[in-house]
Amino acid sequence: MKNRDELSILIEDYISKLPFPAQPRGLYEPIEYTLEGGGKRLRPLILLMTQSIFNPTMEHELNAAAAVEVFHNFTLLHDDIMDNAKIRRGKDTVHVKWGNSTSILSGDAMVIYAYSLLSRVDSRYLSKVLEIFSKMAIEVCEGQQYDMDFESTQNVSLEEYLEMIRLKTSVLIAGSAQIGATLGGATAQEGDIVYRYALELGLAFQIQDDYLDAFGSRELLGKSIGGDILEGKKTFLSIIATLEADAKLREEFITLLHSDALAPEAKIEQVKEIYNTLNVADIAKKRIEKHLNAALEILNELDLATEKIEPLKQLVSSLLDRNN
Amino acid sequence: MKNRDELSILIEDYISKLPFPAQPRGLYEPIEYTLEGGGKRLRPLILLMTQSIFNPTMEHELNAAAAVEVFHNFTLLHDDIMDNAKIRRGKDTVHVKWGNSTSILSGDAMVIYAYSLLSRVDSRYLSKVLEIFSKMAIEVCEGQQYDMDFESTQNVSLEEYLEMIRLKTSVLIAGSAQIGATLGGATAQEGDIVYRYALELGLAFQIQDDYLDAFGSRELLGKSIGGDILEGKKTFLSIIATLEADAKLREEFITLLHSDALAPEAKIEQVKEIYNTLNVADIAKKRIEKHLNAALEILNELDLATEKIEPLKQLVSSLLDRNN
Repeated sequence: MKNRDELSILIEDYISKLPFPAQPRGLYEPIEYTLEGGGKRLRPLILLMTQSIFNPTMEHELNAAAAVEVFHNFTLLHDDIMDNAKIRRGKDTVHVKWGNSTSILSGDAMVIYAYSLLSRVDSRYLSKVLEIFSKMAIEVCEGQQYDMDFESTQNVSLEEYLEMIRLKTSVLIAGSAQIGATLGGATAQEGDIVYRYALELGLAFQIQDDYLDAFGSRELLGKSIGGDILEGKKTFLSIIATLEADAKLREEFITLLHSDALAPEAKIEQVKEIYNTLNVADIAKKRIEKHLNAALEILNELDLATEKIEPLKQLVSSLLDRNN
Repeated sequence: MKNRDELSILIEDYISKLPFPAQPRGLYEPIEYTLEGGGKRLRPLILLMTQSIFNPTMEHELNAAAAVEVFHNFTLLHDDIMDNAKIRRGKDTVHVKWGNSTSILSGDAMVIYAYSLLSRVDSRYLSKVLEIFSKMAIEVCEGQQYDMDFESTQNVSLEEYLEMIRLKTSVLIAGSAQIGATLGGATAQEGDIVYRYALELGLAFQIQDDYLDAFGSRELLGKSIGGDILEGKKTFLSIIATLEADAKLREEFITLLHSDALAPEAKIEQVKEIYNTLNVADIAKKRIEKHLNAALEILNELDLATEKIEPLKQLVSSLLDRNN
């Protein structure tokens, strides 16, 4: 069974060689630009891992792995238009570089391309895999809609926020795991277990993203800190802050978060001061650990040898490491 | 075998009852708004027709029929953002009513929804149907890219223009016909014949759209005349005009077409005067008839009883009627 690094190399190689047509250049150049942008390739990785757990000798379904990565990159491309994001992975976003129309259209082509890749899986599993994929894909859209709705919603509860990130982030990771299991010949029950495992992993992952935006290191992340704060975005941290603060501090915090009057550095510093006063970082860390532990718990439901499950446990640890 | 009107009722009924989730409203309301907007439903109609030609007793694959219609409506939704179109089928476009972000996201959800509907076809045909669908879907994106590229291209040849409308408009009609044939159990060769038939039909259809924009009746079309002229768009008519005109008139025509200085009515009138001088309408009509005749010719390649092919012939006639 290939280890994580070997699988990552397979994925990068496969994605870098995807045979996009030469013309029209205006359509395919932004797609290649987006896909060569790197990223963690978490979704294809988890797909190949779950596939090999259930069938170590089967050839890796790199088309399916690429499909979930292409789909993920499509969501980034369109989200960046909607969020008016300028920088992604240290590079200009597609709509900044080529304009909105190109960005919309290239994103559309990526969804279709993802389905086209996915359609090449073993025909025995095609129908099931499509069902999982379409369900998660539509849920990702629903999550993005809730995220946009939240921009103009005063009170977002923690429950609503967690449901939004479940849809927007977690289901794609969970669906990737379930697709991998399905392609490896897992039973429906086993597919469900890895789905629930990856759902918890995805929740931890997103809350960690929120945490790192405020408390991470610019050097390690390769992007500036405090972006969410400057945009006044609802995140796990900001929602915890409104829950933990007394009425006076809550008022102050909300005004501050939506203020454009301060210099960026000052705004970030003042928001983080409130986070520190309210112990928000600790609450976030505990929540991340809670979801990661839940992920490990769920893995125990699998009736498989310990060493088989090991790669999925290591994924959990690597997220924990990122946290500390 | 059901006639055209009966099939249309089936389609409308199925589409109006598609069970979209209640929430998030912001995502699904624009989709319902778009789909209830009517339109000719040409793509699902041709799909059901070709299906019944090859298998009159089989239950209609309304899911597949709805899939091509939902996909078509998705392209309208995203194209309207890119073209900054304000009105579609007499109603505000989605991006005018709800904004660009909603329009992008609801469109995305429609692509996924279309695949989800399509995935429910008989599993024997699933792989083939997906292949046809993804190929045509990506070609539609390519066509839209060429259409956008043409905006900033001085000289577009007739050949390039026809290739653009083949991709942007015809392949979706042709693919719908081929999917229907496939679902009806047609051979690959028969599927290819109806594909080529519908491709010609689609070319005629698009050139006719170009023709009607300048020479149609506002009452019959339900939209204002001259939109393409006001936008200075490249159409079959404008390309023929540049080919037929001498150097002096060509210069005058191009300047006029890109001018914003005139009142809308005056610009339309002056462009149409040049079209009349150059006999552009007749050339367009002849070209439409050429493609419709080619469509009829291709139908003769089918080794089927005349009455079976009749509905497809009638589709051709109904387009000819619209022309005269």
